[in-house]
Amino acid sequence: MKLASFSYQGSDRIGVQLSAGTLVDIAEAEAATFPDEQMLPKTMKALLQAGDAAMTRVAEVLAFARLNPDSVSPIAETAIRWLPPIPDPGKICGVAMNNSASNARKISAPEHPAFFLKPPSCLIGNGEAIKIRSYYGSTHPEPELAVVIGKTMRDVDAKNALEYVIGYTIFNDITGNGMRAEDLFRYWAIYATADDSNETERIEQHLSYAGRYKGTDTFGILGPWLVTRDEVTNPDDLDVHCALDDETIAEDSTRYYNYKVAEILSFINQFHTLHPGDVVSCGTAFKPAAGRKSIHSANFQKIGSSVTVSIDGLGVQRNPIEVEQREIGQWQLK
Amino acid sequence: MKLASFSYQGSDRIGVQLSAGTLVDIAEAEAATFPDEQMLPKTMKALLQAGDAAMTRVAEVLAFARLNPDSVSPIAETAIRWLPPIPDPGKICGVAMNNSASNARKISAPEHPAFFLKPPSCLIGNGEAIKIRSYYGSTHPEPELAVVIGKTMRDVDAKNALEYVIGYTIFNDITGNGMRAEDLFRYWAIYATADDSNETERIEQHLSYAGRYKGTDTFGILGPWLVTRDEVTNPDDLDVHCALDDETIAEDSTRYYNYKVAEILSFINQFHTLHPGDVVSCGTAFKPAAGRKSIHSANFQKIGSSVTVSIDGLGVQRNPIEVEQREIGQWQLK
Repeated sequence: MKLASFSYQGSDRIGVQLSAGTLVDIAEAEAATFPDEQMLPKTMKALLQAGDAAMTRVAEVLAFARLNPDSVSPIAETAIRWLPPIPDPGKICGVAMNNSASNARKISAPEHPAFFLKPPSCLIGNGEAIKIRSYYGSTHPEPELAVVIGKTMRDVDAKNALEYVIGYTIFNDITGNGMRAEDLFRYWAIYATADDSNETERIEQHLSYAGRYKGTDTFGILGPWLVTRDEVTNPDDLDVHCALDDETIAEDSTRYYNYKVAEILSFINQFHTLHPGDVVSCGTAFKPAAGRKSIHSANFQKIGSSVTVSIDGLGVQRNPIEVEQREIGQWQLK
Repeated sequence: MKLASFSYQGSDRIGVQLSAGTLVDIAEAEAATFPDEQMLPKTMKALLQAGDAAMTRVAEVLAFARLNPDSVSPIAETAIRWLPPIPDPGKICGVAMNNSASNARKISAPEHPAFFLKPPSCLIGNGEAIKIRSYYGSTHPEPELAVVIGKTMRDVDAKNALEYVIGYTIFNDITGNGMRAEDLFRYWAIYATADDSNETERIEQHLSYAGRYKGTDTFGILGPWLVTRDEVTNPDDLDVHCALDDETIAEDSTRYYNYKVAEILSFINQFHTLHPGDVVSCGTAFKPAAGRKSIHSANFQKIGSSVTVSIDGLGVQRNPIEVEQREIGQWQLK
């Protein structure tokens, strides 16, 4: 199934793809199928939290709607405003430098997935404007496969990790590489010495902080669809395409990720509990087509009026880019 | 007022301090005050989202309960399990290296606040166990003043920022400095050149990712109380104390923060919308008392059975530390 959160005729709803180009409101389809008893929640996160029984019921009401097309009112995709499929995930983890195409640029790096967090407040849906202010500096797109968690998980081994996935979606992990270069620290870190907790030592360390460059408003585009896992044969072999306006800037595949989806989930899960609705974005598919522009040349401050990301079987995400000339506000007292 | 989220007799509730050592369940107090019409939400985030009118009503029902002590059943603090005051904030921002005591250790650093995110899934309440696994490596406490947002804000100047704050709480921003040292990258970043978007250049950059070292389960202790803003005369002048077992490891004050609370909120707000229930933790108050251990020597893997943080007017937070000898799970396929 292809699930969506959307706004239509003034209200926020969840829906499921009825046929190419149309959706049905899940609440309406449930009322048509089970006139005497509706139990499905009204938001995607609550639907995921309700577990397998709720998802089975969505499949039943979709089957009924397809068999009884007069029982529901199909809604055209063109008539809706897309919301992120999960507008309010508990967390969004993003894996850093997971593309094997970036390995040659690593001078030193960990031998396990490393990840950062993005806040739900940065999310927008398919079709919404990416709003870039001039003081954000250089900003580029990062097309990624994202996983949506369906069941609470902790300490799950890689071989079982995909069983906790409800589905997949497209994530554009917009990145302010200008702000990234500004939020760097080189400093003397203090550590307890290995043998004596009463002694400390100073170690020179470089740290960087992703709050701004990964988390700014509109820096996360999720959707259009949450595509359930049964429709994705192998998440580790999906073609990914990204275009600025209509020019290809990345042609890649998730098969070039250093770490497979199950490994990423299992690694994170040795540290973090993952909850229904949590999103894990698996890394940038950025390989440029030969002789083409790359995502790194796609600085939204200078070029591009829209960006498109598509992934095999997950649909197409296209968002306009708006640049606003604007000074930063008076954040200092005095 | 001092507000809390807590579990009592098998159900999660929100409450307000009735007298030293006792709380009253807000729902019970509302029913006592307004027998015919209860409208207050049952969770702290929903209460904050309900705005000023809801908070005024909490003040009314608290006043009624204090004037009519027989109308409610006081609950002893000792009988409850504390939850984080906001168990499910939309985001938790943490400001990096905001203590002037760390300035001498900076070799190079930005001239504005830099921040990272922690996930809601890492939160525990006062009194809950901090669970440290041996494979997490060196881990230490970071005592901090945290701000809780009461109204949606964007682009608010520093001089107005505190008006959007509903209150303050204690945050122990537990940090895996061992994992921090592991999740570093030194690599060649690609940037579009300044004058030609068709050209890119490589710049050597050090990046680090905070997902593990700041976000691991139980790495965020929030509470016990959300103390409303009217009770905090000046958030930029609060004494902070931290102890490992009963030994002081930090004696500091928020007056030594590089950036004032209003400046931090306003800076973040030039990039992120802040929503009711969002938490902003303002940086570590870590100055050791003369001749004492510091937070940096408080490696939970080796020492300490509990950690205590107290801040002027915000109460005392005390949590046991449990270390578990455990290998990381099979996160790799093969």
